[in-house]
Parts: sequence; structure tokens; C-alpha cells
Amino acid sequence: MDWKPSHNPHHTLQAQIVAWVAARIEHGDWAAGTRLPAQRELAARWGVNRSTVQAAIDELRAEGLLETRRGSGAYVSGSAWNALLARSQPNWQRHIRASVHKPNRHTIRLINDHEPDPSLIRLGTGELSPELLPAGELERSLRDLKLDPRAIGYSEPLGSLRLRRALGVQLERIGIQTQPDNICIVSGALQALQLIAVGLLEEGSTVFHEPVSYLNSVHPFQSAGMRMLPFRHGSQLQEQLARAARGRQSLLYAVPTLNNPTGRSWNLDQRSSVYDACSELRIPIVEDDVYRDLLFAPGPLPIKAADRSGQVLYLGSLSKSLSPGLRIGWVVAPSPVAARLADVKMQTDYGSSAFSQEIAAHWLESGLYERNVEQLREKLRQRALSTQEMLNARFSELADWEPPEGGFYIWLRFRQPIVDKGLFRRLLARKVLVNPGYIYDPGDLHHIRLSYAYASDEDMRTGLEVLREEAERASRT
Amino acid sequence: MDWKPSHNPHHTLQAQIVAWVAARIEHGDWAAGTRLPAQRELAARWGVNRSTVQAAIDELRAEGLLETRRGSGAYVSGSAWNALLARSQPNWQRHIRASVHKPNRHTIRLINDHEPDPSLIRLGTGELSPELLPAGELERSLRDLKLDPRAIGYSEPLGSLRLRRALGVQLERIGIQTQPDNICIVSGALQALQLIAVGLLEEGSTVFHEPVSYLNSVHPFQSAGMRMLPFRHGSQLQEQLARAARGRQSLLYAVPTLNNPTGRSWNLDQRSSVYDACSELRIPIVEDDVYRDLLFAPGPLPIKAADRSGQVLYLGSLSKSLSPGLRIGWVVAPSPVAARLADVKMQTDYGSSAFSQEIAAHWLESGLYERNVEQLREKLRQRALSTQEMLNARFSELADWEPPEGGFYIWLRFRQPIVDKGLFRRLLARKVLVNPGYIYDPGDLHHIRLSYAYASDEDMRTGLEVLREEAERASRT
Repeated sequence: MDWKPSHNPHHTLQAQIVAWVAARIEHGDWAAGTRLPAQRELAARWGVNRSTVQAAIDELRAEGLLETRRGSGAYVSGSAWNALLARSQPNWQRHIRASVHKPNRHTIRLINDHEPDPSLIRLGTGELSPELLPAGELERSLRDLKLDPRAIGYSEPLGSLRLRRALGVQLERIGIQTQPDNICIVSGALQALQLIAVGLLEEGSTVFHEPVSYLNSVHPFQSAGMRMLPFRHGSQLQEQLARAARGRQSLLYAVPTLNNPTGRSWNLDQRSSVYDACSELRIPIVEDDVYRDLLFAPGPLPIKAADRSGQVLYLGSLSKSLSPGLRIGWVVAPSPVAARLADVKMQTDYGSSAFSQEIAAHWLESGLYERNVEQLREKLRQRALSTQEMLNARFSELADWEPPEGGFYIWLRFRQPIVDKGLFRRLLARKVLVNPGYIYDPGDLHHIRLSYAYASDEDMRTGLEVLREEAERASRT
Repeated sequence: MDWKPSHNPHHTLQAQIVAWVAARIEHGDWAAGTRLPAQRELAARWGVNRSTVQAAIDELRAEGLLETRRGSGAYVSGSAWNALLARSQPNWQRHIRASVHKPNRHTIRLINDHEPDPSLIRLGTGELSPELLPAGELERSLRDLKLDPRAIGYSEPLGSLRLRRALGVQLERIGIQTQPDNICIVSGALQALQLIAVGLLEEGSTVFHEPVSYLNSVHPFQSAGMRMLPFRHGSQLQEQLARAARGRQSLLYAVPTLNNPTGRSWNLDQRSSVYDACSELRIPIVEDDVYRDLLFAPGPLPIKAADRSGQVLYLGSLSKSLSPGLRIGWVVAPSPVAARLADVKMQTDYGSSAFSQEIAAHWLESGLYERNVEQLREKLRQRALSTQEMLNARFSELADWEPPEGGFYIWLRFRQPIVDKGLFRRLLARKVLVNPGYIYDPGDLHHIRLSYAYASDEDMRTGLEVLREEAERASRT
């Protein structure tokens, strides 16, 4: 809604609003049943008095284009006029409902829809706050970029060779030996999962994941018709996987270092026993390692570093450690698997932005990346400390948490099972947006994922205060 | 294969090669049955004598890692050692074969695989030659780019508002009225088709397309389980579509301006009759208009410009007119449809590169884009003229063609049905890569898509000479 009526000798503000709304309905932008924003909001957006909005809505209602329902505002009417219109329009809603891709879950949709609202305090957002993004440094670095005409055409299927070489050097530091044809550049780790889902798995395959998992909040595998099953660490792991896979194709997905949302990392024992069980059963492992560079202190090497049999698909990304706007991630895999993923990617979007790839290569080669990540780690560590102080002062009677070892998250556990949709909505009504635990573990009513990477110190303090009040109220009832 | 053996006092070149090949097999990069490149090629890549390659292969064969087949070179062996190895590896080939996404067709795979080979003359490549890409201008423009920290985080679902506003101005010039929420930014038009396929259609839907169509060479709809059906212009169009759709969901895809591969445009009559038939049947139209800015003279407005009912999804892109490396395209649609596509895109790759979007917005706003496109049109017109002169001199007895009205292509029609896989392969053996008509129309044996946008004048001349010789030979037999 970028439009505003203007002062115009020939058309009153009201007439302009009426014409504009009618055009929206006629062009199919607003289907029957669409609810209009509140009058107050419309008045603010259009820069007119609320009485003008009211008059325009009355006129549109008289024309049969809108109908009003008591207490819930104005809607595009489903009346005769619209029925007529609908006959000449594709039934987009039916198209959308029936299509292959499933709509995102309700809470996640609410979170996505509200995240752009600057008036909200976002306590759980899994991204770097704008002030943690090196915008100035990136802007300056663009001046040093040399663009070879060959680099800005369509990309090779695996992505820029220059970037893959730079990543090879980076990967070697964490014990992963690669050749450039083991690396497929993707537009972020989520796209990697999408390519793996459609490129390497058949419908009905089983995807094993940790009980509390980022995978429950995104649906690359479910959308492609895969069955999701949680696995648990322990001595019975191999039997557990073998029984559940029932001889069908399967794959195990995990974030062994700085899990999203719990922030926990696997110990060496857990790493080797998962690797061994999967090797024995020939189940590929997808090791999602996008938070590694944000470890406050060095941790165990990736599982991929000890992979002797091409069993592990390793995912990395610059979204958490440099800029999500680059949309640059990578998969490390045996070369036929990397080629396969690249082939599917070429059929999907003809490769990632050449400009992003050049910028990424320049940052990795020049040492800018390493320097940025060192500073970022320190800033995140400070934010983690400050958030823990706030938690200590407010939540020691209500909840428990572990000090984070890196990354973005504190997995706050309330002693009472109070984290339900009601709490989420009450917080939202008070302008505080949280990521409730149930989006990562459907049965969970105890947790909230806090992110100290996004909210400012002041917002964090205010938001936690609201959270404490609502949590106390919920605990009492 | 980026690796080379080095001169090393402790390991002979042969020993290094043996160790490296063994590691590739052990790590799963080269599965049993993988064919090694020819010895000559390996020698060149590794910078060693062919006798060293031979000795290394002999040693690997003695160890049971390779086997050789008379006349066809060396393969990774399927013997005991490998069987042992295979037990500890996921069966990647089975994963790939069984997966949801279908491998690209054979000729298209061959084209994709050979396009990076700089020794080939590419007569049909559908992209701008590096010398037509404004690399220097782009490089300079990066210096003027201002990066707001907010612009380099995750993007809004619909994409950068700044870019959508700039596109709105551009679209208005070709008669398309939009608001920013009618525009969804995508990573090129192919991704738009992918999003439409999974976001708006159910499995088993019918996609109508022109008999000779780009859609036969890419598979966004087929991969999502849709049925493809050609339609023909004419007075029976509506009956034709109604009968074929059989009441199921359907959609009509077309490139009405400068079709790929034929270069033809629809006249006003064809435009309005397709629009009317689809309106009557409530079949959405996908109007792919990525070549519009390359019209040598102004042509009819897009169908979308006359769309009164939100029936047409309009696709545009910067890949043909600025740089494919940007990976920036757009869909214009009723706002609920744009929002739906954006939602699916967020679940796929979290949006397009913010850097590419900023560059695109800067080029559109500043007039750099318009200036570039004027120059580009003129250069393409010159190339089209020069290619037609070459054709006149060589093919007037063998083939027919129409003078191109813009874009990249000449749809060369041989009088004899000689354009089969045999001709394609013979040309490839002579280092000339063509796009045969049968990849755009499965039954076609008459056409080749020539592109004057890629090959240099000299390459075009040499390539056409080879094509004439092979075509004459084929016509005689």
C-alpha cells in the first residue's frame, strides 16, 4: 500500500480513495473476504482524516463493494457485484489451497508477518541486528571489487571457482579436505536442504532429526513428501535408526555445533556414535554447521573432518557470520553428489548471484571475513553476558537456562508449562515477539528461544520485563 | 579436478597421482564404474607426461582400484576392494536415481556440460557474450552504492521495496499499473516458474504452452508433476483449451514477444484472443516477457497492460538486458498471488541477494539501465545483420529464416529433416555446439536455434561454415 491520495482540484480525497479501492478489487488484488486495515491505520497511511476514510468506506459499502461487520471492520464484499467479478477471475485462492507447497504453520506465519513491523520488540529473531552487520566495511569493499565480464554471466553449475577455492582454504582450517568439485555454492543453507530434499531423496523417505530442531520450523523435507522422525542419542541409536528406517531411504539431519534453538553442541562421543551408526546403516548425514564461526571458544571439529567414506554432507553459510543479504552458503559433498545438487540448482534458479559470490570470495581471500568474525564474536559474547544479567535479575524464580557457548541463542526453560499460543498472542498484543519452543518441538510448552543477536540492550530489557510479567501471570493461573 | 602433482623429493609424480586417485575413490568422489578422462587429457591437466599417467593407471589397476576396458579407457573397478568400500558408503547413485527431481534430458545435459569449454564455438547460447556485458560500468557503479545496514539483512518476502518501486516506474512505461505489493522479486524468470509451479498449481494440473517452447528445454512444471500440452492459435482456441483442460486446474504459459527459440512475436489479434479465451475459462496466463527491452523497434504492449481482471502473471528479468549474474527477475501479480509466491520463496531460499537488488535498483533509478539497453539493442541489431549476411552467403540453398525483430535468436529452418542427434554429435565432434530444434519441440528435425548474442563474428563465421558442411553432407545421405 504505497499509494496516497493527493490534493487535486478535480477529485476529492474521498473520491480518490473510492476509485483506488475499487481498482484494487477490480484488478484482483483484494479478493472477496479480504479484510481492510483498521480505519485509524488507513487514515495514517493515506495521510487523511479518519472521517474521510469513514466517508469513503460508507460510499464503497453503498456501492456494494465493501461490507462491514460489527467490531471487526470492513471487508471486500462477497455480494452480487463481486460474484460477477469472480466469474471473470482465476480462482486464485483455490489455486493456492490446492498447490503442492504447504502453507507455513500459523505461529511461524505470524512471526514472519510481524517481523518487519518496527514497533515490535523482537526477542527471538535469529539474525544479526543491523548494527552487527558490517555495512560500512562492505560498502568500502565494493570499491576494491574487480568484475571480470566472465564472472557476471551465468555461473558454472557448482558456482564461482574463485569462491570455491577460497572456501577450500577456509575448510582446511577446520580439518575438512576438499577439492573445488566437492563444493556446491547455494543461496544459503535453507536452499541446500531444498536441493538435498528434491535431488537426493525419494518421496516417503525418512529424515531423522534432533527432537528439538530448526527443521520443525522450516519445511524443506516435508514439502517434498518426506517423513520426519526425531532420534535420540544413546547406546541404542543404531537399533533405533534401523527399526525406524524400515529399509527405506533415509537421511539424518543435525546441527551438532550450537544447535538452533538450544545453543547446545554435541560432545565427541555423540559425534562419533552418530557417525558410526549412520555408517553402519549407510545413512547419509547432513551436518548443518552455520554457527561454527560464532563459537566463543574453539570446539570439536566438524563430523565431516573425520568422514572417511563420503558419508557426510556438510553445510556452511555466510548468513550468520557476515550478512544474510549475500544469500551465500555451500554444501561439501562427494563430487558426484555436489554435481547432482548443482544440476538441480541450475534447474531451479541458474545459480546464485555472481555479485554476491565475488563479494564473498573477496572477503574470504583478503582476510576481511576473518577480522569481521573476530569482532562479531566479541560483540555477541558481550550481548550474551548482558542478557544473562537481565535474566538473573528477573527470571531466577521462574526459569532456567545455560550460559551460551556461542551463536545467537539462549534456550530459556520455564518451570511451568506456560509457553502456549495464548502466551505468544498476549506478548504480541503487548508488542513483544517471541519464538515459542513449540515451533521447534511440537509438544514443548516450557521453552522460549531468546536471541541476543537482534534486540538492542534497551529493547531486550523492556521485552524481558513484559515477558516476566506475562509469564508470572500465566504461572499463577 | 583442480589438483596437480608437484615436484617433491619424497614422492614421485606417479606416487602422488596414485595416492590422489585412491583418495578420490576412498572419499566417495569417484564411485565404482566412474570413467576416468582420457590419458591425454589427464596428462594435460596434471602437467605430466602421458607415460607417467599410464604408469600410475597400471599401478592402480594392479592394486585393483581401476580396471581398463579395451577402447574405452579406465574405470573405477567394481572389484572386491570396492565392494568392501561400497558397504561403508551411502549408495549415492541410488539416492540420485530415486529422487523426486528428474535429470535433465540428454542433449540439454550435453549442452550444459560443454558450455564452459572455451575451445567450443557456441552458435546457440542464449546469453549475452561477455563483451556485451557492461562489466566496467557495473564495476564503477558499485562505488556509488550506499548500503543501508537494513538493506543487507534478510529481505522482505516480496523483495527490496526500493527495487519494487523502481520497477513500478519501469512497468508504467509499458502500460502496466502496479503497486509495490503487486511485485515479487525472484532470482530470474526460471525461479518464477518454479514458484508458480509449486505455489499455485496442484499435481496433475495442465500447463498449456506454444508448440515450440522454451518450456520443453527446462522442466519447472514437469518436475512438479504437471502435464504439458501445446495449444495453437486460431478460432477454435477456447474449445481446444476447454476440451484439453477437462475441468482440471490449468495455466497457459507463453512468450508473446520475441519467443524463445523462434524470435517471433504475437500480433494484436493473437494477444486478445488468447486473453479472451483464458478469461472465459478462468485460466491464468503466465506472460514471460524477458526479451521485451531488446525489441529493435517498439512492439505491441504486453498482454498484462490490458489485463482488467488480475488474470495475467507477468514475468520480467535483467538477465537478458543487463547481466545474468545479478539473478534478478520479477513477477507482477494480484497482491495475494504475489504474497503467496513470496511466501514459497521465503521457504525456498529466504529471498534474492540484497546486493543484487541494490545494484538493480541503482541501475534502474539512475538511468544507467536505460542507457545500457539502448546501446545493447544497437549492438545486437548489428550482430543480427552480420549473421544474416553470413547466412545469405552460405545457407540460401539449404535453409530459410526470418529477419529477427529483436532479442538473440534466428530460428534457422533446414529444408531437409536433418537436425537429429547425429548432426548434433557430429557438430560437437568438430567443436561446434548448437541448440537443435528438438529440445524445444520434440518432433522437430528441421530447426536450429542460432544466437547472435554469444559467438564473436569470427566464431560465428567459422561455426556456420562447419554447420554448412555437415548440413550439406546430411542432406546428401
